Parts: sequence; structure tokens; C-alpha cells
Amino acid sequence: MSKKLVFYTNPRSRGRIVRWMLEELGINYETKVIEYGAAMKSPEYLAINPMGKVPAIQYGEEVVTESAAICTYLAETFPDAGLAPLPEEKGNYYRWLFFAAGPLEQATALKGLDINIPAEKQGMLGFGNFEITLNALSKALMDNPYIAGNRFTAADVYVGLSIGWGMQFGMIEKRSEFVEYWERISQRPAYLRAQKLDDELIPKA
Amino acid sequence: MSKKLVFYTNPRSRGRIVRWMLEELGINYETKVIEYGAAMKSPEYLAINPMGKVPAIQYGEEVVTESAAICTYLAETFPDAGLAPLPEEKGNYYRWLFFAAGPLEQATALKGLDINIPAEKQGMLGFGNFEITLNALSKALMDNPYIAGNRFTAADVYVGLSIGWGMQFGMIEKRSEFVEYWERISQRPAYLRAQKLDDELIPKA
Repeated sequence: MSKKLVFYTNPRSRGRIVRWMLEELGINYETKVIEYGAAMKSPEYLAINPMGKVPAIQYGEEVVTESAAICTYLAETFPDAGLAPLPEEKGNYYRWLFFAAGPLEQATALKGLDINIPAEKQGMLGFGNFEITLNALSKALMDNPYIAGNRFTAADVYVGLSIGWGMQFGMIEKRSEFVEYWERISQRPAYLRAQKLDDELIPKA
Repeated sequence: MSKKLVFYTNPRSRGRIVRWMLEELGINYETKVIEYGAAMKSPEYLAINPMGKVPAIQYGEEVVTESAAICTYLAETFPDAGLAPLPEEKGNYYRWLFFAAGPLEQATALKGLDINIPAEKQGMLGFGNFEITLNALSKALMDNPYIAGNRFTAADVYVGLSIGWGMQFGMIEKRSEFVEYWERISQRPAYLRAQKLDDELIPKA
């Protein structure tokens, strides 16, 4: 008997990253919507994720949190979808996944909060400054059509939505390499399906 | 003929994370010390890492940056050392690696810069607040002796030094579960060897 996969999410969260990944895999899963506020901080949900945030997944006994970790985990646990890296893709794959979860996320969050770090303190931060961070990402996407190389992998789900959302919310400038990359991946049937499923979960006003 | 592994580092950097990992693997590698300032921003080094920071590794044609990515990559590329996760360890392994590279790193960096995010804006950040972040980590280390389960893996190199350094620099409080974890892993011969190698690279004042 196969283990059950439960997906804890909210349509207004990074759960959309994981939804896309799940749709790419084409597997069965059960969606549990956790509302913001009391439900997300309830003892039941804190037992799943003590951070009190979504997304999280539970697969059998294993609980995984952090969107990038969930994408990485799912790609390896369901290898038939071919979204885990080939040996020669692993360097780029892990490099850019951790780059997006670390420096890019940190740089974007500070920009969103309108916090400027003075130049003499930038060495204390893993990302230095926003410009350097975006330039590194630009170079990667000018070198290859996908973030790990010549084909779509789980890293594109996470890095791709980081860039797509960054442009949508005005945090990341619309450089042609970012726009073209986002167009390349956001037409995938799994992404469109995932968007529809999450959109339908948002109560009509 | 085997590929050469080149390790770009500075003894006063997160390169110490990667040094520890390399010593755990027991493989041959060549160390290239990159000085802060002009050398780290030189065209030669920017071709390796456009972020202009260390550490980085080059293995054959592949370049990997971001300390957590390098640990993950090396564990898989040199599986004989047994530091990559077993299938049942993968959930925790990726969860806590990305947790340390994302929320924990971000929370610690802001604390180090003495930046306080008002409660109403904490939802914009992946980590919420520092207390919640540390509590999540506490729980993980009360559940298991190592971050991915019952044995030492590459995730302990990265998460372990994040905690060890955090306590050393006064950013992370010395809770007993953190102190005991750090004592458990920092006595490993590979860590002691790595420390000695890096200490010897620091010019005598």
C-alpha cells in the first residue's frame, strides 16, 4: 500500500511553489488548506511546522517544510518525473536553489521592507547588495535556458517563481533574460493547472 | 584520469564550512586562498563566482558556490563518505539545510545588523521572528541527536557551524540542546583537522 502525501497550503502563500511541483510530478495528493491566523498557529498545525507557516508536506511519517526543500525532496522521492538533476547538472542545480533560498530571498525581502544596508556593512550579509545578486542570476540565465542547464528541473520551479513573483511585485527588474526565462517556464501545463487549482481555492469576494 | 577539485577560500570566511566538509570526505583537493578586496573582485575570480565571494569549488568543469550547496553537492558526488542522506533521512536533511540557509541565516543577519522588523511586517519575511526560528531548531535537536536523524550527515556540517558560530558570536543563545549538539559534532577529527589547516593560513600578526 502506498504512502499518502498530504499538502498543507494556503492559496495566498508560497504553497503555490509546491503546488506547481506536485502538478509537475503528476502524483496523487491530498490538499489541506490552512487559513492564516488561528489555524496556522494551532497546536495541530504547529506539530507539523513549528514555524506556523505554509507550505508543508507530510509523506508517510516524514514532514518537510521550506518550499525549496520540498521541491528538492519531491524531485528525488518521485524520480519518474525526471525533475531531479543528472550528475552533470547537480552543481548548478544546488548552487541556484540555495542562491534563490538564501541571497536572492534575503535581498528581495530587505528591498520589500525598504531597508537599505550601508555599504560598509554589506560584507556582513551573504548577498552583499541587490545589484550584485541580480547580476549573478542574469549571468546564469544568459549561459543556459534553464537554471541547471538545458532542461527543466525542480530548481526551475523554485528559482522560476522567485523571479516571476519578483518581477510581478516590482522587486526584480524586468531584464530580458528574466522575462524570457519566465515565459519559457510559465507556459508549462503543470504551472497553468496549479494556478487554476489555487485560484479556485480563493473565496469569491 | 580523475578530475581535479579546486577549493577557493579565505580562512576568515564561510570557506571553513566547506573545508570541514572536504576533510570529512577525505579526498584530495587544491586550496586557493583568495584575499579580501581586489583579488576577490578580480575578473579571474568573478568568472568563478560573480558574487565576488568565497567559498567556491570547481570540480572539472563544474563550479559550485553557496556553502550549503557545496556541502550538498560534495556529499552526493563523493558518496563513499556516507554523508548524503538515506531515503528516510531526506525530508529532514533538506528541510534543515534550507532552513539554515534561509530563515536562520536571514534572522541572524538582521540581528547582527541590529535591525528589528515590526510585528505587523514580520509576515513579509520567511522567518517571522528570531524566537520562532530558534524554537523550531530547538525542537528538531530535541527530537534527534543529528539534524537529519540518528547519524552525522553533510547537513550537520552546515547547520552545525551555523549554530556553533551563532553561539560563539552571541547571536544564538546557548540553549542546552544547541550546546550539546555542537559538542557532539565539533569533536570530529575532520573538524579539528579543518580548523588547524585554516588557522595555519592566517598570517601571524
